[in-house]
Amino acid sequence: MVRRLFIISLFFVCIQAQAQQQDSVMLRNIFSSALENGKAYEWLDFLCNRIGHRFTGTENAAKAVGYTKGIIEAQKLATVRLQQVEVPRWRRNDIETLNMVQGSKREPLRICSLGGSIGTPSQGIRARVVEVQSMAQLDSLGTKGVEGKIVFYNVPFNQKNIRTFTSYGEIGKYRWSGAMNAGKYGAVACINRSLSSALDDIPHTGSMGYNDTITRIPACAISTMGADKLAAALKQKSNMEVELKMNCDTLRDTVSYNVIAEIIGTEHPEEIILVGGHLDSWDKGQGAHDDGAGCVQSMEVLRIFKELGYKPKRTIRVVLFMNEENGLRGAKQYAASAKVKGEKHIAAVESDGGGFSPRGFSSKCTDKSKETYLQQWEKLFEPYGVHEFDKEGGGADINQLEDQGTLLIGLMPDSQRYFDYHHTEIDTFDKVNKRELHLGAAAMAALVYLLSEYGVK
Amino acid sequence: MVRRLFIISLFFVCIQAQAQQQDSVMLRNIFSSALENGKAYEWLDFLCNRIGHRFTGTENAAKAVGYTKGIIEAQKLATVRLQQVEVPRWRRNDIETLNMVQGSKREPLRICSLGGSIGTPSQGIRARVVEVQSMAQLDSLGTKGVEGKIVFYNVPFNQKNIRTFTSYGEIGKYRWSGAMNAGKYGAVACINRSLSSALDDIPHTGSMGYNDTITRIPACAISTMGADKLAAALKQKSNMEVELKMNCDTLRDTVSYNVIAEIIGTEHPEEIILVGGHLDSWDKGQGAHDDGAGCVQSMEVLRIFKELGYKPKRTIRVVLFMNEENGLRGAKQYAASAKVKGEKHIAAVESDGGGFSPRGFSSKCTDKSKETYLQQWEKLFEPYGVHEFDKEGGGADINQLEDQGTLLIGLMPDSQRYFDYHHTEIDTFDKVNKRELHLGAAAMAALVYLLSEYGVK
Repeated sequence: MVRRLFIISLFFVCIQAQAQQQDSVMLRNIFSSALENGKAYEWLDFLCNRIGHRFTGTENAAKAVGYTKGIIEAQKLATVRLQQVEVPRWRRNDIETLNMVQGSKREPLRICSLGGSIGTPSQGIRARVVEVQSMAQLDSLGTKGVEGKIVFYNVPFNQKNIRTFTSYGEIGKYRWSGAMNAGKYGAVACINRSLSSALDDIPHTGSMGYNDTITRIPACAISTMGADKLAAALKQKSNMEVELKMNCDTLRDTVSYNVIAEIIGTEHPEEIILVGGHLDSWDKGQGAHDDGAGCVQSMEVLRIFKELGYKPKRTIRVVLFMNEENGLRGAKQYAASAKVKGEKHIAAVESDGGGFSPRGFSSKCTDKSKETYLQQWEKLFEPYGVHEFDKEGGGADINQLEDQGTLLIGLMPDSQRYFDYHHTEIDTFDKVNKRELHLGAAAMAALVYLLSEYGVK
Repeated sequence: MVRRLFIISLFFVCIQAQAQQQDSVMLRNIFSSALENGKAYEWLDFLCNRIGHRFTGTENAAKAVGYTKGIIEAQKLATVRLQQVEVPRWRRNDIETLNMVQGSKREPLRICSLGGSIGTPSQGIRARVVEVQSMAQLDSLGTKGVEGKIVFYNVPFNQKNIRTFTSYGEIGKYRWSGAMNAGKYGAVACINRSLSSALDDIPHTGSMGYNDTITRIPACAISTMGADKLAAALKQKSNMEVELKMNCDTLRDTVSYNVIAEIIGTEHPEEIILVGGHLDSWDKGQGAHDDGAGCVQSMEVLRIFKELGYKPKRTIRVVLFMNEENGLRGAKQYAASAKVKGEKHIAAVESDGGGFSPRGFSSKCTDKSKETYLQQWEKLFEPYGVHEFDKEGGGADINQLEDQGTLLIGLMPDSQRYFDYHHTEIDTFDKVNKRELHLGAAAMAALVYLLSEYGVK
């Protein structure tokens, strides 16, 4: 009996060793395919240089829907369908200026309107500026210190964090809630120091919010150099006035689409593994890293599988989400529809951290025991420089599936450059390195392969 | 007795835990210092944008010697001296052209002379081209197939390797030995496909060699797109001629300097830890990644120690080597002098892989037991994304100390972008990211700190 057990054990050990060996070979083939024959870079070139930015509700966004759907169809990578989404339609328009008024002199500072902001009256807003370094400081000033003034949130990016996403997370609230918090105390507008890791003259846009109970005020981002200049001028003359003009506005909602491509699993078709990025971008630059990269990497996963002749055991669904930047409407619609249909998303992988060298994966799940599920594959990823497996979470789009118990996984690229470009006119194709982009796609494909083979247990 | 032993053991365990805790805090302080207050980026800006390339023997190289010495002195980072070195003086001059001759038509292809090459006669060389993909193929053609022709080494960069240095290493021989091997069979010149990871129209220069027994022939590098064009034209018409003109030449040796900065160790002054990069660059671009980055990172190690008030137990010597690119004269002179003086270099750390995010360290030592010495510190480096510790070797400059038993250590930055820029007109300051550069400097400083505390055992 003991001998029989021993033989059976040996048999399973051998089977497991063979599976590991097969996985290791498959990963090597995936990376080779991406590095030698990858098309993601070429597709991104088109998205960026032929289409341009893909801001929600614009003609460019519609072109991007057509282009990516067309590529997947023409190259027979998967079946594709469009999922209609009602999306917001904010417009920056042509005026966004901030001037420091010093006597008869006007000194311009580089700003851009924050997405969703109302404009100023056409003659602009002229007011004094109150600079704060924290929400607590704003609260302590209160209505008395703030009313009738423009609040200037001058909170620097914390350079000490190794991952720049940590720093971004720390100060994101100033952009999102700045106008609400300042409006509460009667401020007439707010200016936010750009959420940027660089010291330069490029303002970073991004989403801001209002609520129904607080008077809406215009909100803009100022370049980091501009913020330093404004702070220095205020130090010289605290009652200096500035003049802010913005003519952004919001139209009625319009219609757009998520692009959904699918390969049905051969063994467990009902178990879905989602791979995605967001097709929309801000209206500055080309949305190359944010998030053209994530879209073409997701498509590349399909191309790699096709080249290698790999038939996934579980269903692979590539979703290019619309409207991540200013509404998450695509992701919300997708998650709601999945719930209605009773679809079972066992895992969702998102790339929305830029097309840089992949460094790891970050997981999140309502079932906490699954958050470390990927760590079993650490050794397989080591040869590819992918070493970091943590539990910091998935991504804005896939997180909408959280309450469906999906294992949410974010690709973690090297983050050092991301917030130099993020939401700006310099997030352009020339900032993307082909090998880095393709390594990221390969890392995603490798993970999707493993998830497809073994499921999520 | 057992109890006493237990207490003694506990004591040492506590001491060790405390030391680890201290090291961990010190590393955090080092990284914070670099990320918040680092000066390397500013220094590199000056080296690149105010001085420019620093090709051996040029006035720019002399300026760079003066600038770096001046910074170290002015900021009281260490004591500094110059070590005189006799260096070669090759000049590219103003003519380097390659034309495909098709009837009366001339189609130009982008090339650059390889460093050390002789020029062509002033009327140029007009000859047929024989394309080869390997040295073996050249050998099989022999004199009969090669004599009187121009050999075109069209060996592509292997994209499959995860580390691009591996691919560079695989094909480096075509650049270094191409002229010798082709000259042996009576070729009249050779054209090398650029050792580049990118497909573009930018030729990559670099060193080539001659020997005394084989007739010297001119050698140039062609851009990767140019190489593809030439190969396609030869496919159409194998007997097509090309016309090569180069007027590069070599003058008599001249004088230059290594810059050597030193902090004497407080406990083991006789044990030297070298930290360095090379101050010279090629004469194209600005030598930003190769190797301005390595120089300013080495200087930054001193700045960080000063800011943190750290007094190293062992002697720290920063060496900015002259003439790594086309002769290694600085490194050879330094090593020879160290030997004569009987200096004891316990370790040498070189940064010559670009100013990208640090990924690890690579060691090499004649005493093989020391090659894995750094691995004890892996855990300490993990929070900084520095995960890779291997035994692939040190760096061209510090390797001159190999026979002195020094533990040679190369900083391994992320390598994906390096060979897009390497030895070209686009290796410029704008390709360097401040945080990445400073993280690399911090990784070096952290390692130097540990080596200084614990020595090499």
